[in-house]
Amino acid sequence: MSKEITSRTADYAQWYNDIVLKAGLADYSAVKGCMVIKPHGYALWENMRDVLDKMFKDTGHQNAYFPLFIPKSFLSKEAAHVEGFAKECAVVTHYRLKNDPNGGGVIVDPDAKLEEELIVRPTSETIIWNTYKDWIQSYRDLPLLINQWANVVRWEMRTRLFLRTTEFLWQEGHTAHATREEAIEETQKMLEVYATFAEEYMALPVVRGVKTANERFAGAEDTYCIEALMQDGKALQAGTSHFLGQNFAKAFDVQFRDKDNKLDYVWATSWGVSTRLVGALVMAHSDDQGLVLPPRIAPLQVVVVPIFNKDVAAQERINNYANELIATLKAQGVRVKYDNDDNARPGWKFAEYELKGVPVRIALGPRDMENNVAEVARRDTKEKASVSLDNLAAHVIDLLADIQSNMFIKATNFRNENTRKVDTWDEFIRVLDEQAGFVAAHWDGTPATEEKIKELTKATIRCIPLNNEQEEGKCILTGNPSSQRVLFARAY
Amino acid sequence: MSKEITSRTADYAQWYNDIVLKAGLADYSAVKGCMVIKPHGYALWENMRDVLDKMFKDTGHQNAYFPLFIPKSFLSKEAAHVEGFAKECAVVTHYRLKNDPNGGGVIVDPDAKLEEELIVRPTSETIIWNTYKDWIQSYRDLPLLINQWANVVRWEMRTRLFLRTTEFLWQEGHTAHATREEAIEETQKMLEVYATFAEEYMALPVVRGVKTANERFAGAEDTYCIEALMQDGKALQAGTSHFLGQNFAKAFDVQFRDKDNKLDYVWATSWGVSTRLVGALVMAHSDDQGLVLPPRIAPLQVVVVPIFNKDVAAQERINNYANELIATLKAQGVRVKYDNDDNARPGWKFAEYELKGVPVRIALGPRDMENNVAEVARRDTKEKASVSLDNLAAHVIDLLADIQSNMFIKATNFRNENTRKVDTWDEFIRVLDEQAGFVAAHWDGTPATEEKIKELTKATIRCIPLNNEQEEGKCILTGNPSSQRVLFARAY
Repeated sequence: MSKEITSRTADYAQWYNDIVLKAGLADYSAVKGCMVIKPHGYALWENMRDVLDKMFKDTGHQNAYFPLFIPKSFLSKEAAHVEGFAKECAVVTHYRLKNDPNGGGVIVDPDAKLEEELIVRPTSETIIWNTYKDWIQSYRDLPLLINQWANVVRWEMRTRLFLRTTEFLWQEGHTAHATREEAIEETQKMLEVYATFAEEYMALPVVRGVKTANERFAGAEDTYCIEALMQDGKALQAGTSHFLGQNFAKAFDVQFRDKDNKLDYVWATSWGVSTRLVGALVMAHSDDQGLVLPPRIAPLQVVVVPIFNKDVAAQERINNYANELIATLKAQGVRVKYDNDDNARPGWKFAEYELKGVPVRIALGPRDMENNVAEVARRDTKEKASVSLDNLAAHVIDLLADIQSNMFIKATNFRNENTRKVDTWDEFIRVLDEQAGFVAAHWDGTPATEEKIKELTKATIRCIPLNNEQEEGKCILTGNPSSQRVLFARAY
Repeated sequence: MSKEITSRTADYAQWYNDIVLKAGLADYSAVKGCMVIKPHGYALWENMRDVLDKMFKDTGHQNAYFPLFIPKSFLSKEAAHVEGFAKECAVVTHYRLKNDPNGGGVIVDPDAKLEEELIVRPTSETIIWNTYKDWIQSYRDLPLLINQWANVVRWEMRTRLFLRTTEFLWQEGHTAHATREEAIEETQKMLEVYATFAEEYMALPVVRGVKTANERFAGAEDTYCIEALMQDGKALQAGTSHFLGQNFAKAFDVQFRDKDNKLDYVWATSWGVSTRLVGALVMAHSDDQGLVLPPRIAPLQVVVVPIFNKDVAAQERINNYANELIATLKAQGVRVKYDNDDNARPGWKFAEYELKGVPVRIALGPRDMENNVAEVARRDTKEKASVSLDNLAAHVIDLLADIQSNMFIKATNFRNENTRKVDTWDEFIRVLDEQAGFVAAHWDGTPATEEKIKELTKATIRCIPLNNEQEEGKCILTGNPSSQRVLFARAY
C-alpha cells in the first residue's frame, strides 16, 4: 500500500481516510458499515479508555455489564426513545442455522424463530432500567452510579471510519438518583469530566453546551454536549450527557421509598463517548504527513532511531547510550521504543513514525555522538534541534509537556479564529460557505426556525453554550427577538 | 434479599447460585440465557483481564477489534467449524423496526431484510482470517500476533451464571505464522500463559493437557487445555489454545511468500479464556459463608472496620490510626478500604465482607487500641489473630501473600487427593459415583470407546496430560491395549 497521503487542501475527506488507513488505525471490513480497529488505533482507544475509566472511578462510578440483546418490547416502553432508535436497529430473529437440504450450504433454520425478536443494543437505557427495577427499592439504594464499556450497533446508511460506523465501541454511564437536582448535578459533572478529558488529554478544546429540543437524545429532558471544531471548519459532537428526568423510571416502573417512606420515581442520567473520539483526534490535529498525537494519549511517545555507519565501536557507543536513555525515560513513565531493526533504513523509519504520529523522535548518529549531541525532532511543529546528551532525558520530558500544551493552544487558536459572530442572514450564508467554523448568531428559539435554517444551509445548532452571554438581538432568519446567540455549524 | 446461603453439602448447585447472586457478582437478565455482570463481579473480571492483558503484551501480542457480525457465508468456509457452531448462532435478519400499522407497537420492517444474514460472532476465526487475507502477503508480515477482548454469543439451551451463558465476555487470540513448528510453539506458549495465570493469580491448580479428537475445537488440528477441579469433584475447562494448522488459511485463501519467494498457506493458532473463569474461581475456593477470593485478583484486599463506643477521644484515635494504616498500605499497592459508615453495625459489615470474599479484615476497637493491638481476620481459614499495631502494615502484606499461597496449596491438595488411578470398569463407575474427581485410566484411543464411556457414565476425557507418563495397560471399557492413562471426569 502506498504511503502517499492526499493533502487536506486537495480533498479533506480523502485525507482523513488516507490517514486512518495508512497510519494503521483502522481498516474496512467485510460487513457493511463495520470497521476493523487495527492495533495502533486500538492502542489509542485503550489509552483513552484507561484515562476516562479512572476519571469515572474517581467520581464514584463502578463498572458493570448488561446484555447485548434487548427484547423488542422494551424499546417501545419509552415513546421518544423508540422513535429515535427503531429505524436503525439490527434485529435478531433466529437462533440457529442448519444445512440446506438442497445442498446450498447453511441456511437459517425456520424452526428456530424467536418468539420475541431481540434488538442488538443501540444504547442500553431500556435493558438497564428494566434491571434497576430489581436493584432499587429505597433511598438507601441511591445514588446508583454505573458505567459500562461495550459495543453498540446503529444501522447507519452512510458510514465513515470511526466517525460513523454501524458497530462502535463506547462507554455508557447510567445513574439513578433520589432527586431532580442531584441528577442534573451528575449530568453536568460528567459533562465536565468529558470536557476535561478532551482538553487535557486529547488537546482538543471544546465548547460545553446544551442541545436544543430538536437535537436532544431520544428520551432525554436535556442533553448536554461538548462540541469541537475540526480543521475543515466542521463541528463534531465529542460527547453527550443526558438528564433523563423520570422518563425511564416511569417507563420501567422504578420507584423508591424516600426517607419519609413516600414512593417516588427515580431520576436518571446517561452519558457516553465512543470510538468516534479517535476520528475527532485525527481530524483536529493531523497534517499532510500523517497523524499528530498528543503525548498524553499517544501509544508510543518517543522513538529512538540509531544511525549506524560501518564503525563497530561507534555502533556500540550508540547502543549503550540508547539503552541507558531508554531506561531513564521508562523509569519516568515515558512510553519509548528503541528501533534498531536493521532491515529498514533510518529515512524509512522517520517517515513511518511521522505517519504514525509519534510525538518525539531522537536520532543518534556517530558524528552527533562524537559531538555529545542528538537530533531531536518534534512531530507537532516538525522542528529539529541538536540537544546535548547530558540532559537529553529531562529535555525530552519537558518537550512532551510542551507538545501537549502547544497542540492545545494551536487547536484553541484555530477554534477561536473560526468562531464568528454574525448578525444577518446574508452574512450567515457567506461565512458558512466561505469560512466555515462556528457561527454565533441569534435564533428565535423555535424548532421550526431551527429546522428551516438546517434545510436551507445544512447548518445545525451545535449547542447553546453554558454560561452563555445574554444579549438582546434578532433571529438571523425570522428577525424575531432573541436573548442570546447560539452556536451554528455544519457538522460531522 | 436474604443473605442466607445454601450449604455445599445440602445442594452444591444452589450454593453456587446463592454465592453468585448474593455476593453481587451477577444477576439474571430479562434476556434468556444472558446475565448482568454486577459491579463486584465485573471488578473481579477487570482484574483478571488486566493481568492477562499484560501477560499477552509481554509475549509480543497486540490488541485489535473485529466486527461483532459475521456474514453467514463465512461460517461455511471451514467445514468442521460451521458444523460446530451453526446450531447455536444468533442470526440478524433485519436492520429496522417500524410502527405496526395496526397499532401493535413496533414490528420488524419486512422491507429491511438483509440480503445475507449476519451471525453474531460465536468466535471470530472466520471474520479475522478473512481480514488477514489483506494483511499478509510476505514472510515479513509474519508472525501476526493479535488478541481481541470482546463479547460473543452462543445460543445455549441450558445456561448457568458465568459457567454457561448465551452471551459472555472473553479474549480471543488469533495468530498467524510462517511455519507449522512456530504455530505449535505459540499454541503451547499461550497454554502456559493461561496455566501460570490460573495458578499464580487465581490460586487454581490446573492440569495442562491436550484434548482428544472428539473434544477438539471445531476447525482445530489440536486443542490444548487447562483443566481444573471444582469442590464437588467435577472438572472445569478453564482455557483452551488451538493449533489450527492451515485450515483457516486455506478456507480464506491466506498465502504468503517465504524468503525463497515460494507461496505457502499461513499457519494459525487461536486461544481464549472467558468470564467462565469467574465461575471457576467461585467453585474452587468459596465456602458456606460466601466468596473466598485470592488476594492477587480480589477487587478489595483489605477492609478496616472501626468499632466505636461513645468515647469521642477513642473514636478519634481509631480514625487517626486507621487513616495512617490505610495510607501506608495504599502506598504499597494494597487495595484497601476504611468502612466507617455509621449506618451499619460492625457485625453486619463483618458478614458482608465475608460474603464478598475480602481476604483480610481488620477490626479496630477502643480496648484493642489501648492494648496497642488490632484484630486481624483472614477470610480463607477464618482465623483471627491479635496483632500489634506497631507492625500491622507489614503483617498484612505478609498475610496477603500467605493467603494467596495457602489457597493454592489447599486447592492443589484437594485436586491431588481427588485424582485417582483406576484399572477396572467397576472401579471406574464406583469412583465416579462415590468419590468424583479426576480419574486416571487407560483408554484404547478410539473415539468410539470414548463416546461409549460418555454415554454410560457422563464422564468425558478431560485431557491427555502433557508429558504424560507412558505405561502399558488395558482400556477400562474394551480391555484393548493402551500406552498411557488419560484423565476422565464429569465436567461443567
